[in-house]
Amino acid sequence: MKTLVDSAREGRLTRAMKTVAAEEGIDPDELLRRIAGGSVVIMQRGNRYTGMGTGLRTKINVNLGTSSGKVSVSDELRKAEIAEKFGADTISDLSMGGDINAIRREILACTTLPVTTVPVYQAVVECGLDSMTTEDILATLKRQAGQGISSVVVHCVTRKMLGVFRQKKRVLGMVSKGGSITSAFMLTHDCENPFVEHFDEILSICRKHDIVLSLGNTARSGCIHDHPDAFQQAELRQNCALAHRALAAGVQVIIEGAGGHIRKDRIAPMVRSYKKRSPFPLFVAGPLPTDIAAGYDHIAGAIGASTASAAGADYLCYITPAEHLGLPDPEAVKEGLIAFRIAAHVGDSVKQGREKEDEDVAVHRAALDREAQIRCAMDPERARQFCGEETECTMCGKFCAIKIMREF
Amino acid sequence: MKTLVDSAREGRLTRAMKTVAAEEGIDPDELLRRIAGGSVVIMQRGNRYTGMGTGLRTKINVNLGTSSGKVSVSDELRKAEIAEKFGADTISDLSMGGDINAIRREILACTTLPVTTVPVYQAVVECGLDSMTTEDILATLKRQAGQGISSVVVHCVTRKMLGVFRQKKRVLGMVSKGGSITSAFMLTHDCENPFVEHFDEILSICRKHDIVLSLGNTARSGCIHDHPDAFQQAELRQNCALAHRALAAGVQVIIEGAGGHIRKDRIAPMVRSYKKRSPFPLFVAGPLPTDIAAGYDHIAGAIGASTASAAGADYLCYITPAEHLGLPDPEAVKEGLIAFRIAAHVGDSVKQGREKEDEDVAVHRAALDREAQIRCAMDPERARQFCGEETECTMCGKFCAIKIMREF
Repeated sequence: MKTLVDSAREGRLTRAMKTVAAEEGIDPDELLRRIAGGSVVIMQRGNRYTGMGTGLRTKINVNLGTSSGKVSVSDELRKAEIAEKFGADTISDLSMGGDINAIRREILACTTLPVTTVPVYQAVVECGLDSMTTEDILATLKRQAGQGISSVVVHCVTRKMLGVFRQKKRVLGMVSKGGSITSAFMLTHDCENPFVEHFDEILSICRKHDIVLSLGNTARSGCIHDHPDAFQQAELRQNCALAHRALAAGVQVIIEGAGGHIRKDRIAPMVRSYKKRSPFPLFVAGPLPTDIAAGYDHIAGAIGASTASAAGADYLCYITPAEHLGLPDPEAVKEGLIAFRIAAHVGDSVKQGREKEDEDVAVHRAALDREAQIRCAMDPERARQFCGEETECTMCGKFCAIKIMREF
Repeated sequence: MKTLVDSAREGRLTRAMKTVAAEEGIDPDELLRRIAGGSVVIMQRGNRYTGMGTGLRTKINVNLGTSSGKVSVSDELRKAEIAEKFGADTISDLSMGGDINAIRREILACTTLPVTTVPVYQAVVECGLDSMTTEDILATLKRQAGQGISSVVVHCVTRKMLGVFRQKKRVLGMVSKGGSITSAFMLTHDCENPFVEHFDEILSICRKHDIVLSLGNTARSGCIHDHPDAFQQAELRQNCALAHRALAAGVQVIIEGAGGHIRKDRIAPMVRSYKKRSPFPLFVAGPLPTDIAAGYDHIAGAIGASTASAAGADYLCYITPAEHLGLPDPEAVKEGLIAFRIAAHVGDSVKQGREKEDEDVAVHRAALDREAQIRCAMDPERARQFCGEETECTMCGKFCAIKIMREF
C-alpha cells in the first residue's frame, strides 16, 4: 500500500491532501510538497483528515484514558464527547486501567477524531515490567495499529542518553510516563531501547496502516529548575535523526519537544532552535512556564502554549486544571481544552496573522449584539451564564463606553 | 504635610519605604532613589504599604463595585474579601450603582488593601452628564480623597486627541468607561478636559492626602484590529508629560497604558517602548491578545499580562471570565485574580529571575508530598478537589514516572 508520503513524492494529490488544503485555505500543491518534505503530516481516520505543520492552524490534542488509580469508562467516553464538542483536533487514549482494548474500542466508537496511543503503556500493564519482552511491546504496537488508531508514540531514549540524564542534577528527574517505563524496561533487562533497536519494524507497521509516528519526549523537564539540560538536547538530536529515517521510509512523523516546565522567556528560543534544525511538525506538551499553578495549570499551560505556538509549534498537548493532582474529570478536560484553544488561536494570530475570528467578535461587540457574541463563543452556555438574567450587559449598565460614544 | 516623594528627595527613609524594601528584599536606599526618580510608588493605607515599579514584584489590582445595571452590596463585600484572601495587591472600587458613598465605606471597612477610585464615575451618577460641572467633578475627587483611598484615576484625553481619535477607523471606538464619560462631558459642554485644565488643583489634593495619581488609559483598544493607533501614542505622550509635572510637585504617579486588546507579539514592544520613554510604573489592563475568549477572558488576559509583565509592566489590572458579558460574581473575581497571579509570577520569573516559589513546589513534587503541594497552592481547596478521595495521585497511579525512576 502507498502511504501519503509516497503519493506526495509522486506528485499525486489524494483526497486527504485536497480536504486539508481546502480546510486550511492553502494551495494543494504546496501542501503536497510539504508532506513530501516532512513539514506537514495528516492524521487520517475515516473521512476525517487532520493536518498539522508548517502554514496550518495550530492543532490541539486532548489526553484521556483510565489510569491504574481510577477507572471510569463512562467518564472517559464523556471526555471523548467533550473533546469533539469543544473543538479538539485529536485525542490520545492513554488508558492503563480496566479492559484497555474494550475501552479503546468504545472511545473509537464514540468519536470521529483521530486517536493516538502509547503502546508501551498497555504492554506494561498487561505484561508487567519484569516479564515484559521486546516482542510483547512490538505485538502491542501492531495490535493497536490494527484497531484503527491514527498515530502512535514511541520513546527513543537510549542507554547513552540515560547516562547523560544520570549525570545531571535535576530536582524532578524524569517525568515522562512512557519515557520512564521505557527506561525502566531498559535498565531492568539491561538492554538497549526496543524502539530504536527495532525502528525499521516499527516503520513497517506505520507504513502498513499509514499512521503518523510520534517520537516521544522522555527528557522533558518536570520543573522550571530542570530546563534546559543536555539530556533534552541529546534526545532532540536523536529524534531528528530518527524522523529523517521515518520520512525516507515513507512514514509521516512528528517530534515531541520543547514541552514540560520551561521559563517563559526560554520557550520561543527553544521552539525556534528546533525549527531551524528540523522540518518535522513540533508537538509540544504545555509547556508550563511556572510550577506554582496547581489547580490552575491549564492557565499556566495556555501562557506557555500560546508562546510556543506563536514561535512556531504546530501541535499542542493540552493540560487540565487537574494536572499534578489527579486524573481529570470531564469538566477539567473541557477547561483544559478551551484554555488551549485560546492559546492556539493567539499563536496563530501571531504566526499566521489570523485575525478573522477576532474581527467577527469585535463587530458583534460594536453592535452591542449579545446574542451574536454568545453564539460565536467557544462555550456559549458559559457565556450565557455570565450574562445573567439581565437583558443588557451589567458590567457598565447605562454607562457603557460604546453606548456613551454613540451619541457623538 | 510632606509626601513620600518629598521625603525621598530629602533622603529620609520613612516607614513605608523601609517596609516595602524589606518585603521586596531590596536595598532601602535604592528604593528611596527610585521613589525620588518616579520609578517606584507606594500606595499607603494604614499600616499596609504596597510598592510598585522598577525591581519590585508585579502587583495585581482587582476591580469591583456596583454598576447601574446590578447592585448587590453583599456581593461587592464578598469580592473585597476574596481579593484579600487570594492575594490581590490593591482594589479599585468602581461603584456606579446604589448608595456609592456608603458602599465605599463598607468596602474600606472590610479590607486592609489600598483602594483606588475613579471620581468621574461617581460624579456622573450623582450629577448626570448634562448637569455635571467641572466643580462637581473636582468636589467628588476631593471627597473621595478624604474617604481614605490610596490612589485616584483621572483620564486626561484632550480635545486635540479626540480629533485624532475621530480620524481613525476603529471597529470598537472608545472602550474606556472613564475616558468615554470624560470625553462625553467635554463634547457635551464644549470644553477642554477638566482634569488637564485643573491639573494643579488635582495635584494639590493628591499631595494633601499623599495618594498616588493614576493617569487613565482612554485610548486603549477594544479589539485586536484597533491596535496600535495614533490616539494611543498621543495619549501616552501626554500622560508622560503630566506625570513629570506630578512628580515635580511631589506627587507619586503611575501611568495606565499598553492595555486593552493587543496582538501578542505587539505587547512586549509596546511595553519596552514605554519603558524607554518613561520612568513611571506602568499599569496595564489585561492586555487581551485575542477577542474570541468570551467566558474565558481571564485566560486570554493571563496570556497577555504575563507577556506584559515579563517585558516590564509593573502593575496588572485583572480581567475576569465575565469580561464583555456582565458584572462578575464573586467566583469570577476569584478566577480572574488567580489567573493574574499566575501571570504576574510568570512575568517576575523572567524579569527578576524569581524562581524560589517554583522550586519549593518542585521539591514537594519530587518527594511526592501531596499535602505540602496542596498547602502551597494558591487555592488549596480547589487543589484538594482535584486530588479526589484517593490517597495517591490518580493521574498515573502506580505508573508514576517519579515512582518508577526511584527504583534505579
